[in-house]
Amino acid sequence: MSTTRTNHRNETRIEADPALPTIVITREFEATPERVFRAYTDPDLVVQWLGPRRLRMQIEEYDARRGGSYRYLHVDDDGTEYAFRGVFHEVRPSERIVQTFTYEDYPDGVSLETATFEDLGGRTRVTTRSLVDSFEARDGILASGMDVGVREGYERLDELLVGTA
Amino acid sequence: MSTTRTNHRNETRIEADPALPTIVITREFEATPERVFRAYTDPDLVVQWLGPRRLRMQIEEYDARRGGSYRYLHVDDDGTEYAFRGVFHEVRPSERIVQTFTYEDYPDGVSLETATFEDLGGRTRVTTRSLVDSFEARDGILASGMDVGVREGYERLDELLVGTA
Repeated sequence: MSTTRTNHRNETRIEADPALPTIVITREFEATPERVFRAYTDPDLVVQWLGPRRLRMQIEEYDARRGGSYRYLHVDDDGTEYAFRGVFHEVRPSERIVQTFTYEDYPDGVSLETATFEDLGGRTRVTTRSLVDSFEARDGILASGMDVGVREGYERLDELLVGTA
Repeated sequence: MSTTRTNHRNETRIEADPALPTIVITREFEATPERVFRAYTDPDLVVQWLGPRRLRMQIEEYDARRGGSYRYLHVDDDGTEYAFRGVFHEVRPSERIVQTFTYEDYPDGVSLETATFEDLGGRTRVTTRSLVDSFEARDGILASGMDVGVREGYERLDELLVGTA
């Protein structure tokens, strides 16, 4: 494991469009789209990186194919569980994932999330666009501290991609 | 079949929010939420009303429950097929349906559709909110003539609800 590959040199950009109720997250990874896509769709890999370091992820279902469903928990040190679920509208290998997303404590808050995997020549740019139905909901998500989980999750994914090289 | 119940007295409102990339459609029906919801979820009923009169609907799959998928065709007189598909994120009996929606000729154009069924005391107000990721996409849908299919579909649903009273 080389230092240059594990110092998380790639910046995570989290952008709120002033004109649309979206959050657009952009991040590059030092691995091919095929490998990054696998880390997004194989539950044995997803469980190793998705979310902040302080929470343990517990996957109940993760059927990452068109028409499949997923549900997982993030569990705090004191046992508090945060549950998330949704369905996969589209899963196009190494290219695109479209899924719904809900935090179960707010079941009527549903976002539509589109992840695209762009080949930069052995490296990959992942762009994730989350669409919700109001600016209030969007700004609430941004204010929730989600950015910590996103950045730490991507650092864990960096580490996973080195480990599975 | 009484005249007063089949003259489609209820107005269909189709509204484009100036600040959000949504289309909100509102319509009242002369039946309980339970019956209207059934007409939205039982494929044997859906096939009888969804879409404009001039197109024949052909359902391939319509599994209207959480995690279920659907795919159907609208077929023109000359045999031209228009295919639509998506997944159900949530199906809450007589209350709420959340689903994704794609016209297969534009597979990357995905909308998130939420239908709510409001009890008006034996009558029902259905509000459908379609959310897309750009104003261009929203305005393109509005300009496509979809309003004809929506209004005619709801008139056919009026007729179906009288027939199955």
